[in-house]
Amino acid sequence: MSVVSEEMKKNVAANSAIRQMFEEGKKRAAIYGSENVFDFSIGNPSVAVPKRVKEAILEVLEEENELELHGYMSNAGYPDVRRKIAESINKKYGSNFGENNVVMTVGAGGALSVVFKAILNPGDEVIVIRPYFFEYNNYVKNNGGKIVQVEPDLKDFSINFEDLEEKITAKTRAVIINSPNNPSGTIYSEDTLKKLGNLLEEKGKEYSTSILVVSDEPYRELAYDGVEVPFIPNIINNAVIAYSWSKTLSIPGERIGYILVSDKIEDADELFNACAIAVRTLGFVNAPSLIQKVVAKCLDVKVDINVYDKNRKTLFEGLTNIGYECVKPQGAFYMFVKAPIEDENKFVEKCKEKNIMLVGGSAFACPGYVRISYCTSYESIKNSLPKFEEVYKELLK
Amino acid sequence: MSVVSEEMKKNVAANSAIRQMFEEGKKRAAIYGSENVFDFSIGNPSVAVPKRVKEAILEVLEEENELELHGYMSNAGYPDVRRKIAESINKKYGSNFGENNVVMTVGAGGALSVVFKAILNPGDEVIVIRPYFFEYNNYVKNNGGKIVQVEPDLKDFSINFEDLEEKITAKTRAVIINSPNNPSGTIYSEDTLKKLGNLLEEKGKEYSTSILVVSDEPYRELAYDGVEVPFIPNIINNAVIAYSWSKTLSIPGERIGYILVSDKIEDADELFNACAIAVRTLGFVNAPSLIQKVVAKCLDVKVDINVYDKNRKTLFEGLTNIGYECVKPQGAFYMFVKAPIEDENKFVEKCKEKNIMLVGGSAFACPGYVRISYCTSYESIKNSLPKFEEVYKELLK
Repeated sequence: MSVVSEEMKKNVAANSAIRQMFEEGKKRAAIYGSENVFDFSIGNPSVAVPKRVKEAILEVLEEENELELHGYMSNAGYPDVRRKIAESINKKYGSNFGENNVVMTVGAGGALSVVFKAILNPGDEVIVIRPYFFEYNNYVKNNGGKIVQVEPDLKDFSINFEDLEEKITAKTRAVIINSPNNPSGTIYSEDTLKKLGNLLEEKGKEYSTSILVVSDEPYRELAYDGVEVPFIPNIINNAVIAYSWSKTLSIPGERIGYILVSDKIEDADELFNACAIAVRTLGFVNAPSLIQKVVAKCLDVKVDINVYDKNRKTLFEGLTNIGYECVKPQGAFYMFVKAPIEDENKFVEKCKEKNIMLVGGSAFACPGYVRISYCTSYESIKNSLPKFEEVYKELLK
Repeated sequence: MSVVSEEMKKNVAANSAIRQMFEEGKKRAAIYGSENVFDFSIGNPSVAVPKRVKEAILEVLEEENELELHGYMSNAGYPDVRRKIAESINKKYGSNFGENNVVMTVGAGGALSVVFKAILNPGDEVIVIRPYFFEYNNYVKNNGGKIVQVEPDLKDFSINFEDLEEKITAKTRAVIINSPNNPSGTIYSEDTLKKLGNLLEEKGKEYSTSILVVSDEPYRELAYDGVEVPFIPNIINNAVIAYSWSKTLSIPGERIGYILVSDKIEDADELFNACAIAVRTLGFVNAPSLIQKVVAKCLDVKVDINVYDKNRKTLFEGLTNIGYECVKPQGAFYMFVKAPIEDENKFVEKCKEKNIMLVGGSAFACPGYVRISYCTSYESIKNSLPKFEEVYKELLK
């Protein structure tokens, strides 16, 4: 008799396409040497952790009482940490947040789980814009919601407003946005966000509902070519942000992020309380304590994004010169490339033969594309290009 | 229009009795001075963090590559950490576990959430033994299960087997045990555990099901008077352990623990995989990375439990001398005391008037009792006794 649930049995069988490719890459690296395997499967930061992080760890070990540094605090996190984060946001964006707008979380994944636990009634619908990070499916379903997908805007992976409008119903509780985007690297413009805010307000009035924008922002600090990432709460009233330092500081394993509950939400206080309680009831209890104190000392620090930018430029030029089609990413560290043949899986397999590990667009609800994570060494980018060329020629010969 | 779900609105209104009392205690400490407030509400470790913890943090900062130390690893945790934990368990208990029996988790709360996500089909029943930590309700309900309570054994807070047997049905998927127990401090004897194992095996055969024992063990290392805490997998085949270093090392804020999947479970491999995936899909992604490496260096270390033991003896003697009734706790850092009058709430209120913060037994599904957390300073224990005496006299006059 199996003790595993039916749902999880299926999950064990399927597992994640990304994680599978990641494991395959590790296997091949052991066989062929890691310099000959081009693992573009997973979004594991490759840029050095800023020196300030280690300094900050050493500082908090000196400054703080150990029982408090490693102890329980409010479920929402240390008040002084939340206050510092609010102040830093206020300074950057001219907002007026305080500690009761910030809930510390176990990364952005934890933040999203908590937000959906806080807001979803059984059967509520959450809209996602294709392509999107597939893990949203779990965060929504685990908390009783239903995912509704909006058709992709293949022109630039912005929002297909025509389809979005059709997908909003009386059951729509939230729309997840993710800009800079995984997997496309697109950054939504202020105009796009205004249009989104207006549409949701209008539809909310029509249905007498309140539709929340849930903005997943682990890539907020990774924007290139001087593109500004607009600050959502300045544009859309009904918004929460799920932030993470995973990419900002190259510390994804530490699981540290926050939920920002905009004070323009009608019942912001109740939502803040609901999130703090959900942190507890979902089993997180609180965000890891020491690292809370550490990030509070690193609010003006980020990784050297020029390293990613160099990869981005070289890969984009290299691939488009070969003949690949791709919308130039403005942020994050992913490129969403059109498969040169219709069958994306065949393309992914062909790449794997050449020791290039990619994830098919189907994993992001957008078949016919592949995601390339360029958070790797520059050599890996450089040396993969001839292989990409071989693949292209062999597939189109 | 509120954005908070109906369920969470209720939770916000109710919140946790423990957390409320904790906040009340902080308020009163600000007014009356912390030396005059006896906060026995929350289980926040009061014994110093062992020196080895800080040493270990400094060591891993020196030894490890920073991108790896703070980076993503397998969802189950660093393989070397899991291997070291398995080896340490094997050495202590003569078992034969490896890295694929251990899943690193965000504390024991995270471990329990993950286990229930991995095993529960919708409507499956999970049995709990009153009194029990109320958070189990959430961990089970969040993952589609239904809590079934077993009547308390008021003699010594062991297991009421007669009632347990009646409560097992074809839908029983698991039984949660927690020894040393929160709130009673009871440690289940080997005989009790054998009896439990036999009953579940028998009932499993009867219903053609597989009933899992889920053993919540954050207090494993906190046992007094030389009492041994039996190692469940040596007694019960179908068992997983949810462990945490929160109390072992006084680091509850760091959120670090593990699931041990016994290799005697029929489909142990599938359960291990299901747990690793659930870590990801529930939004934990992985246990915090740096602290994984730290606990792996502290496997032979624990806090000085003599400090708790001194509190335990003084409080137990003091209270029983006054006339309070209480089963002497053998482990953990709680005492479950019978309210001297029928109405536990009146007793709790009376104590609050004297600045003694307790949690009523109703929060543990066992009315008529109160939980006293004696993880406080010795002075607090000592100085609270005259207040407890005043309460006793005033209530029974």
